Amino acid sequence: MENNYYIGIDIGGTNTVFGIVNEIGEIIFTSSFSTNEYKDPRDLVKDIYDKYINFINTKHIQASGVGIGAPNGNFYTGCIEFAPNLHWGENIPIVKIFNEIFKLPAILTNDANAAAIGEKFWGAAKDMKDFVVLTIGTGLGSGIFVNNNIIHGKNGYAGELGHTTIPESNRACTCGRIGCLETFVSSRGILQTYQEICAKKNIEIIIGDISTKDIYDLAQKGNKEAIETYKITGEVIGHSLANLVMILDPEAIFLFGGIANAHPILIPTISDVIDSNVLSLFKGKVKILPSALMNKNAAILGSTALFYL
Amino acid sequence: MENNYYIGIDIGGTNTVFGIVNEIGEIIFTSSFSTNEYKDPRDLVKDIYDKYINFINTKHIQASGVGIGAPNGNFYTGCIEFAPNLHWGENIPIVKIFNEIFKLPAILTNDANAAAIGEKFWGAAKDMKDFVVLTIGTGLGSGIFVNNNIIHGKNGYAGELGHTTIPESNRACTCGRIGCLETFVSSRGILQTYQEICAKKNIEIIIGDISTKDIYDLAQKGNKEAIETYKITGEVIGHSLANLVMILDPEAIFLFGGIANAHPILIPTISDVIDSNVLSLFKGKVKILPSALMNKNAAILGSTALFYL
Repeated sequence: MENNYYIGIDIGGTNTVFGIVNEIGEIIFTSSFSTNEYKDPRDLVKDIYDKYINFINTKHIQASGVGIGAPNGNFYTGCIEFAPNLHWGENIPIVKIFNEIFKLPAILTNDANAAAIGEKFWGAAKDMKDFVVLTIGTGLGSGIFVNNNIIHGKNGYAGELGHTTIPESNRACTCGRIGCLETFVSSRGILQTYQEICAKKNIEIIIGDISTKDIYDLAQKGNKEAIETYKITGEVIGHSLANLVMILDPEAIFLFGGIANAHPILIPTISDVIDSNVLSLFKGKVKILPSALMNKNAAILGSTALFYL
Repeated sequence: MENNYYIGIDIGGTNTVFGIVNEIGEIIFTSSFSTNEYKDPRDLVKDIYDKYINFINTKHIQASGVGIGAPNGNFYTGCIEFAPNLHWGENIPIVKIFNEIFKLPAILTNDANAAAIGEKFWGAAKDMKDFVVLTIGTGLGSGIFVNNNIIHGKNGYAGELGHTTIPESNRACTCGRIGCLETFVSSRGILQTYQEICAKKNIEIIIGDISTKDIYDLAQKGNKEAIETYKITGEVIGHSLANLVMILDPEAIFLFGGIANAHPILIPTISDVIDSNVLSLFKGKVKILPSALMNKNAAILGSTALFYL
């Protein structure tokens, strides 16, 4: 047993992905489970354990710990707290469940923190001490490194940039509040922006038939409404990030997630808006970059990297 | 020589205060200089040095280092950069000047960071790892602790909360931009708010004759316009802090500075507005508190504590 292996778990509302990662950040085994099929999280963990045992018996290796990334995963308590898309109750003691079934140490954090930790250890932030990762998907998450440490905050809730309120929005958010940043910067937000632009111009669209991927493809082909959608999205992110930059002075902000694939059209707008809205000291100082883990299992890599923090 | 002594320097646009602090945070000697009288900062440092030598010769002690707090003081470069109220040039190598004249190690940070470090070592944040200190005076500064460390950021510019833009303001800021938080939350901002309220009600006031202290005294006596001024100020801070709380999840936010003396009327408004504008997870979690160093030389204490970081 020359290598050190860690298990990475990415629990999502739809799928839970499990991987075994070696010490140079290679995923040597991966498997996926349908989260919704499990009424009890213990049954899911048992099925992951069975896959794990099958694999290690053939390879004669053993993992040293389990890193878990999950929506609303709390580093301090080891519990998934009030996750809107998981239906296992308000407070799931996921670390305890993994400890009991795997007989291994387990660490939990939220999915955006896991992505940021992945970027730090296996991505483009290796040499950075101060940076932010935005995970843009169904919602908007953020993982923040300061002084070479991920920010958890006093209660483990830090990084809720997606729910900061912005003057541009009076849209209802899934959290029950009005005007959150993620009402614009998320797949749902981008769809709504596109629909509103089309409605203003009396362009008929079939709402259920259009995805953010379609809007990106349209933008690539020069479609005006799709381009305007990304322009507005970039402006809204840029305004929020200008304030964030003046508070944290990060070296870089990375975009991660499905929508972040549109970075070639988003990044120039974001950079321009930041530079137009910061104190002159900060102009040109922060790099806006696509995540280097974009098409990899960043959450698995990041959750195993919890053991290297 | 049983004790360990450090020199603390608080460079301000008007006065520069010098103190010698022992290892339990007592200022055993202090002296003040008129900053404006010195055309060359080396002359100021030489005069401080003379005072220091006179004092240590009578007491037979020696300091181990010089901690400096200054507006736009950069921890990394040791320079005061583009400080609008100091007239010694754009880039003052203050650490180098202290090194050369005192023959001692010297550390620099900005004045808000010095206040936060003071709160950590000698104030009410001793047992806190994650907190924010707002220094409300001519401008609005912030010093932020995360994971038990002060945030400097990549370039040493972190903490410019006062220049984040807010939807409530279209006032011109001294930085040349429009809508900064400090256009409301600062002595100038409070005066302007009071003037605007009085103007709306056709109440005549003599602008040059009224200070923020007067407005506070009026509020204490039940004056409606003065109370409304502090209510608006508290609401504006509260909205900004609600977003900050969701990003950083701090344990407490401390108010420091002349205006912060009005905390009995500011804090209830700030707390209410934060609780009304955060995700439910965060409600009631953050404490808004007056600084415990309010009437002490916090910047001197904080700048010497740079050596304990």
